[in-house]
Amino acid sequence: MKIAVFAGDGIGPEVTEQAVRVLQHLPLPLSLLVGDVGGYAYQRHGHPLPEETLACAAEADAILFGAVGDPRYDQLDRHLRPEQAVLGLRKALGLFANLRPAKMFGGMESASALKPAIAGAIDLLIVRELNGDIYFGKKGTERTASGLRRGYDVMSYDESEVRRIAIIGFEAARKRQGRLCSIDKANVLETSQLWRDVVIETGQDYPDVTLSHLYVDNAAMQLVRDPGQFDVIVTGNLFGDILSDQASMCVGSIGLLASASLGERATEHGTFGLYEPIHGSAPDIAGMGIANPLAAILSAADLLRHSLRQAAAADQVERAVAATLRDGVLGRDLGGDASTSQIGDAVLERL
Amino acid sequence: MKIAVFAGDGIGPEVTEQAVRVLQHLPLPLSLLVGDVGGYAYQRHGHPLPEETLACAAEADAILFGAVGDPRYDQLDRHLRPEQAVLGLRKALGLFANLRPAKMFGGMESASALKPAIAGAIDLLIVRELNGDIYFGKKGTERTASGLRRGYDVMSYDESEVRRIAIIGFEAARKRQGRLCSIDKANVLETSQLWRDVVIETGQDYPDVTLSHLYVDNAAMQLVRDPGQFDVIVTGNLFGDILSDQASMCVGSIGLLASASLGERATEHGTFGLYEPIHGSAPDIAGMGIANPLAAILSAADLLRHSLRQAAAADQVERAVAATLRDGVLGRDLGGDASTSQIGDAVLERL
Ligand SMILES: CC(C)[C@H](C(=O)O)[C@@H](O)C(=O)O
Ligand SMILES: CC(C)[C@H](C(=O)O)[C@@H](O)C(=O)O
Repeated sequence: MKIAVFAGDGIGPEVTEQAVRVLQHLPLPLSLLVGDVGGYAYQRHGHPLPEETLACAAEADAILFGAVGDPRYDQLDRHLRPEQAVLGLRKALGLFANLRPAKMFGGMESASALKPAIAGAIDLLIVRELNGDIYFGKKGTERTASGLRRGYDVMSYDESEVRRIAIIGFEAARKRQGRLCSIDKANVLETSQLWRDVVIETGQDYPDVTLSHLYVDNAAMQLVRDPGQFDVIVTGNLFGDILSDQASMCVGSIGLLASASLGERATEHGTFGLYEPIHGSAPDIAGMGIANPLAAILSAADLLRHSLRQAAAADQVERAVAATLRDGVLGRDLGGDASTSQIGDAVLERL
Repeated sequence: MKIAVFAGDGIGPEVTEQAVRVLQHLPLPLSLLVGDVGGYAYQRHGHPLPEETLACAAEADAILFGAVGDPRYDQLDRHLRPEQAVLGLRKALGLFANLRPAKMFGGMESASALKPAIAGAIDLLIVRELNGDIYFGKKGTERTASGLRRGYDVMSYDESEVRRIAIIGFEAARKRQGRLCSIDKANVLETSQLWRDVVIETGQDYPDVTLSHLYVDNAAMQLVRDPGQFDVIVTGNLFGDILSDQASMCVGSIGLLASASLGERATEHGTFGLYEPIHGSAPDIAGMGIANPLAAILSAADLLRHSLRQAAAADQVERAVAATLRDGVLGRDLGGDASTSQIGDAVLERL
């Protein structure tokens, strides 16, 4: 079982190191391949997603991803910026489905800005499309007839792109509480109208799932007012970017949330996927050894479950994380003072 | 002084009626012109924004708007749906600047889903561009080479559109705490990169205003984590749609929030504008006489202040609303049981 480890920028390497320790501690025949991504890769190879890294991904059964993003490289041409590593991997590897659970960890309610009773009810899954929408359409800057600079980006989806992500949403809802909410802006956007039509068509194969629709502005309100109302949300790339971050922050403990990006490629051991903590590179605390590695460790658990079909090992890691929290080994983000490696040690001890 | 009253659909007529009572109670030479919009206008004239209504708007100094939106008309062709009244008025009248304050009303903290200490700190103004972006670009549905349905919408801004809304943002910040946060997705969108460049250029004329930038996904998180950090936010049409609704819900008492849409046209008495409560048509409670009319009444106060330069009258109305709340005359949305007309009566008594 081959795992590609792309630690990236900022706190990526620190937190990924702890996740790797956890993986190596398990009695599984894992071989780890290391690759450079993001600003770090740009520094070493002149590109945020070098050919070697893509080749390494192609060879692996799954990718354990840290984070990319480094303000030093924000002024580069767009195609050389750290973020292009993430966008490039998603597109090159056909990772079209981003699964982002947002669930309150028992006992962590106070980390949320929402009232504990409202935050405590959060248990939702956002299914975000990752390969289309305004992210990958034609875009550019040009001059208008009167010589003004004008920027443009084309949003679009075709029915096959909508259908395959809708299926992921319906299947996920079927395994949970059977409720799928599709989010769009069909009162203004033609892309959204097609999205809505195709989601409704796809729903005919899922009579057991209750389908509803919300406009994105209303969804942003409902996620504040009563996030506990949602089971599974399915939405496009752009709205998913915004709403999944909002939902994570409703939970509060961002240092505990992971995300999985899956495609159609099956490997010997499961579905190929990329697993990452959602917290990003956090350049302000990089290198200080205080970042919370639990989201990275939980990403490794997701990887074990989805890409390597090692459900027992995944459960074991998740239980060790829960025990670490229960025992009060908390990072600064949760009001404690445990360091990155102390939290890693605590999880290893409980494995 | 001529005010066009477009009450529209759902609870629009009920709440607007109370705002009109308040206006008529003031010792001002107001003449009211009535026009049909939304589903109601479609029903009577076959179009959500009939020529007569546009003519009426052109004659007036300001528009007092209720709400549009009626699920009975959601299946119509896009250009006949109720929402087109709002989009059409914005575009036809050049109302490019939407000002949406979100401020906690003292004593109303418990209406928010956020913890009282966090909600209580909210006092921000969102300046949303209304005439461009993906709302008014080329859009359609077509067939791909392989015969699939494909929907598309073009997002774009040119530098003059960005500059005029940025100026509104900087001017507003100057009159408040001097902090402007511009929100975009410049790490992915060319439209956003141009937006950011032009906002920075415009900022050179405002050395006294502190300018910052956030990506929209991060902004959606910050609005949950700590909305009190913001003074003025300036953003495009689409992101503004999402974030302004989110910010309003953070305040909690949606029935108390109004918005103003302003253009470049000056009238004899001030700047022409459209004023509306943000709560929308709420078809589920329409006609029941239980909608809270305070946002509509506060819209009338904004109208007096901005379009008629009647600051004293505007203050008087706002004080009467504050007194109504303080005296516990609350609608169901705020945990009370006062009816729409009882709340209207209470404001009139306190005028
Ligand atoms: C870094 C950026 C391009 C990326 C996105 O917008 O998809 C990030 O925000 C995410 O959600 O993974
Ligand atoms: C009704 C709809 C077209 C409109 C918009 O998206 O602008 C509404 O959500 C608003 O914010 O005024």
